[in-house]
Amino acid sequence: MLSVLFDDEFQVVVRKRKKTKGMEGVVSGQERIADLIQETLTDANISIDQLAGIGIGCPGPIELETGIVCIAPNLGWRRVAIGEFLSKKFLCPVRVVNDVDAGVYGEYRFGSAMNAFCVVGVFPGTGIGGGCVHDGRILRGMRLSAMEVGHMKIASTSRSSGVDMPGTLECEASRLSIAAECAKLAYRGEAPELLKLGGMDIANIRSKTISQAIKNGDKSVERVVRLAAQQVGYGVANIVHLLSPDVIILGGGLVEAVPEIYLEEVRKIAKKSVMECYEDTFDVRVAALGDDAGAMGAAAWAAKNISTQAEKVGAVV
Amino acid sequence: MLSVLFDDEFQVVVRKRKKTKGMEGVVSGQERIADLIQETLTDANISIDQLAGIGIGCPGPIELETGIVCIAPNLGWRRVAIGEFLSKKFLCPVRVVNDVDAGVYGEYRFGSAMNAFCVVGVFPGTGIGGGCVHDGRILRGMRLSAMEVGHMKIASTSRSSGVDMPGTLECEASRLSIAAECAKLAYRGEAPELLKLGGMDIANIRSKTISQAIKNGDKSVERVVRLAAQQVGYGVANIVHLLSPDVIILGGGLVEAVPEIYLEEVRKIAKKSVMECYEDTFDVRVAALGDDAGAMGAAAWAAKNISTQAEKVGAVV
Amino acid sequence: MLSVLFDDEFQVVVRKRKKTKGMEGVVSGQERIADLIQETLTDANISIDQLAGIGIGCPGPIELETGIVCIAPNLGWRRVAIGEFLSKKFLCPVRVVNDVDAGVYGEYRFGSAMNAFCVVGVFPGTGIGGGCVHDGRILRGMRLSAMEVGHMKIASTSRSSGVDMPGTLECEASRLSIAAECAKLAYRGEAPELLKLGGMDIANIRSKTISQAIKNGDKSVERVVRLAAQQVGYGVANIVHLLSPDVIILGGGLVEAVPEIYLEEVRKIAKKSVMECYEDTFDVRVAALGDDAGAMGAAAWAAKNISTQAEKVGAVV
Amino acid sequence: MLSVLFDDEFQVVVRKRKKTKGMEGVVSGQERIADLIQETLTDANISIDQLAGIGIGCPGPIELETGIVCIAPNLGWRRVAIGEFLSKKFLCPVRVVNDVDAGVYGEYRFGSAMNAFCVVGVFPGTGIGGGCVHDGRILRGMRLSAMEVGHMKIASTSRSSGVDMPGTLECEASRLSIAAECAKLAYRGEAPELLKLGGMDIANIRSKTISQAIKNGDKSVERVVRLAAQQVGYGVANIVHLLSPDVIILGGGLVEAVPEIYLEEVRKIAKKSVMECYEDTFDVRVAALGDDAGAMGAAAWAAKNISTQAEKVGAVV
Repeated sequence: MLSVLFDDEFQVVVRKRKKTKGMEGVVSGQERIADLIQETLTDANISIDQLAGIGIGCPGPIELETGIVCIAPNLGWRRVAIGEFLSKKFLCPVRVVNDVDAGVYGEYRFGSAMNAFCVVGVFPGTGIGGGCVHDGRILRGMRLSAMEVGHMKIASTSRSSGVDMPGTLECEASRLSIAAECAKLAYRGEAPELLKLGGMDIANIRSKTISQAIKNGDKSVERVVRLAAQQVGYGVANIVHLLSPDVIILGGGLVEAVPEIYLEEVRKIAKKSVMECYEDTFDVRVAALGDDAGAMGAAAWAAKNISTQAEKVGAVV
Repeated sequence: MLSVLFDDEFQVVVRKRKKTKGMEGVVSGQERIADLIQETLTDANISIDQLAGIGIGCPGPIELETGIVCIAPNLGWRRVAIGEFLSKKFLCPVRVVNDVDAGVYGEYRFGSAMNAFCVVGVFPGTGIGGGCVHDGRILRGMRLSAMEVGHMKIASTSRSSGVDMPGTLECEASRLSIAAECAKLAYRGEAPELLKLGGMDIANIRSKTISQAIKNGDKSVERVVRLAAQQVGYGVANIVHLLSPDVIILGGGLVEAVPEIYLEEVRKIAKKSVMECYEDTFDVRVAALGDDAGAMGAAAWAAKNISTQAEKVGAVV
Repeated sequence: MLSVLFDDEFQVVVRKRKKTKGMEGVVSGQERIADLIQETLTDANISIDQLAGIGIGCPGPIELETGIVCIAPNLGWRRVAIGEFLSKKFLCPVRVVNDVDAGVYGEYRFGSAMNAFCVVGVFPGTGIGGGCVHDGRILRGMRLSAMEVGHMKIASTSRSSGVDMPGTLECEASRLSIAAECAKLAYRGEAPELLKLGGMDIANIRSKTISQAIKNGDKSVERVVRLAAQQVGYGVANIVHLLSPDVIILGGGLVEAVPEIYLEEVRKIAKKSVMECYEDTFDVRVAALGDDAGAMGAAAWAAKNISTQAEKVGAVV
Repeated sequence: MLSVLFDDEFQVVVRKRKKTKGMEGVVSGQERIADLIQETLTDANISIDQLAGIGIGCPGPIELETGIVCIAPNLGWRRVAIGEFLSKKFLCPVRVVNDVDAGVYGEYRFGSAMNAFCVVGVFPGTGIGGGCVHDGRILRGMRLSAMEVGHMKIASTSRSSGVDMPGTLECEASRLSIAAECAKLAYRGEAPELLKLGGMDIANIRSKTISQAIKNGDKSVERVVRLAAQQVGYGVANIVHLLSPDVIILGGGLVEAVPEIYLEEVRKIAKKSVMECYEDTFDVRVAALGDDAGAMGAAAWAAKNISTQAEKVGAVV
């Protein structure tokens, strides 16, 4: 996780990182976040009362008014009130948003989607996260954050991801699914380079392993990645039909590792799959800000939603 | 089509109907609309200068600022500037919206979705139309209307609807698809009641034919309808994951013909298919206003978006 | 239905036709068959004791030793002992076989599959029938005929045919499914030629209607036929992987109506879908004998399986 | 691999095993087989001229007259003339058959399918192998062995196995596919027992790991296995429709590890998916002879097809 302290003109004051260590439990996880924020403040020689507010981006659906993270399988979290926890600790307003919403808001304010009317982000990782900024605001439901694009059904397969509905985008196209397909290729002797680089343990088949195997000549691995990106292309076509965004942002480690291949397939499928009148209404782009997008977005969103005279905004993603 | 004249408190002054006769061409179609509006005014003894504005709901994606209907296959329309045409004819502001957006706005203002933060409508017919009112406004893209829910890919079939993407909700679950499946059942001797009522011509297998065949005992027909409603249930689950609406409205002739069956299947599949934290955040309902929803919505939307001192608002859907 | 009397060198003596009129019930149906055979004999001036035997091809699975037709939905038959009925009537041995098995045996003995080691026939119609001659014998199970190729699952769709298993070849690619898709195209204005020729009643959208609509320029109809033929191509790939036939025969009215299109798609998909080592082991051909294949095959099969000194063999399909 | 020497009453004289080590290349692989046979003879104190013949079962399609293995990805073999090689080495007739055909013939002669008219075996492993004995003979094509059941398309997914056709039984349901799904579950924290037992390396997620994880309480792993077995059930339904076997044999390591679960799902899906008249015509059973089935079948098949006065038959699988 990354903590960044910004001044009131969104210039970075201090940036600090820590491993998430999600498996150590909820209490430990919350404390690690608080520690990281405190260390950031200490490094910057800033006291709590100078802090205008905190914006934090967390995975999964968020209960927005209460700042509760509903479920974050990778952290082992279920209904964790991280907003209240941080607010009591740092005596300032806290805004909890979905991490991809934060990233998309960051790209909207400072990155590759500036001035877009409607921008949707699709970030494939262990799952596939999504976010949307529409007319200047993060698109949300009455109570919960929205844009869980990974749980959109796009296929008739029998495999399922974390929901009781088979054929979701996530189970067809997440980095984890790609890693599992690659492990099968390695086992069958069809991906010799990947076998050398990452073996058959899916925890070791990371975005960079995949990218390197493709560079080293594993055609079969490239084919798996293209196939997954095509599925994301269908997901984008669905999103265009539902929201008519003018910008689609692709981001996350896998996209950063193979940007050309990924962008080419998503764009090709999305463009050919939408109704003709939508074809020229949207652009597909790779995210520009990398890891900073989430922190900048969370901070900027908190700043926009907190009336204050204080000077600094911190953000954690 | 239906034309309704409302006073400034949205009470109906006059309501008139005419057959659409889409097959007679664009010019004739536009004239028929203008004639119907004129007849409505005449019946009400209202002159053009008493008309505050016109709201019109048209099928398919709409270019919102210019009032252009992008494509409406049932009317044979392609980029028809109906807004400008009516504006010149009746010398008043015209707001063109998608017909299902109009219907959903109507239900939001006057019907089964009053006070909803986010309401999405799904209306199966020849295709499957959709609409969304979010935080009081019709959800839209920068240039075009949105919520073309029928063109959302949800399956891996090889059949396609009007887009170059197979497996869309529309090709799996529209009334037209149901009619085609029923015709096959009739041909194979598996739907004797439907065969008596509607034969094997899909133009004669209307919503009421289907509903009557089920009442008369054609289990196979009921099964086809339930299967289609289940597909719509998956579409609703996708929409919940993307937009987190608090209300889903089902409407249109087919839903009105078999409301219990339809609602039961859509609700069942949607509830079980979403992430657990969304399960209690949305309600699935049948539309309350019938045919009036579209006219009331179009008129109310026009009234909200037109600054005027005049008294009456007309609407056509 | 067609009745043919052959002499002992398989030269046609008399050929007679009658409408099947399946809807009039089992008793009437059996009588019509007996009448047709009697008329054939009368025309040929042949008495019952000159008849060596009867071969009859019937749709659906056949209980081979007892000559029982298990189920023939188009005839409304369920466990009809047609073999015993004819045997008592004409006092001669009767061999009941599946109609496509008969046709394939006909092609194997006299038509486009002579000398094949293993030939499989795929005949799309209301359903999709299949047959196989392997090493000179009709391939069969212990009790029942086999090769119900139409009920092979090849897809993940939710639609089903006569079995409780969705995604069968039959529901994806039968002539009836094609007719239903065409009716939808006609309804949506995308198949104007077909609409003129056959309307939207699927009983009127026959093989010749489809073929003519394509000739007249309905690209969308051609697309539907190609798509269906591709599904048959996948079915053929499955059959190649299971049985390794050296010849595949395509037959029936639809194939006869659009032989080039159909053959092209089936061959293309089948060739590219099989394991490389099977690619050159099989040939895909159109049936050569038309309607006579079934009668000749049924007669030849009966002759081969009946030890007799009598001279003539009749066949009905 | 396993080598067994039988006397002329099919009693085992000597049984020897060796690791296959497929990755060491074709020459080495052939030599290892020859060495194993020689060691078997030596142990039995048998000279080459006492050897009546050799039967050998090899994976993948086999060119039967020439004894060539067409392709065996796990061995890295492509068109290897193992028959000729062994024949020259041991100066006796050699019969090369597909390994699952051998196993099914073994079960037919000595195991759980004795006296069956038509028995089909389905053996899931890295791929999914198949075999068929029909009326006493191994069912075959003119040139190649048949029953490559793993390459039968049964679904509309976009994933593919070794053929250019997505949605095959193998990519949906092989042990390798199950292992990959389990690795994903382990990664997402949904299969804690499997994670402890086998980690996330698919080469370590073996049949016994899977079986133990289920016993230890991983419901998600059980669900994956049941889902895969259901797909095999659809494959069996297809086979019943095509060949009407009276016995289906399930075998291989995975089936042996979870026989009840596997048999239950395959039988349930197969029985409910076939046409009613086939429902009571077939039985689904687990293989009885374990590893010996292949050796016994290969030897018995060779003995049946080799006219000889010599006493002993060897077999390797």
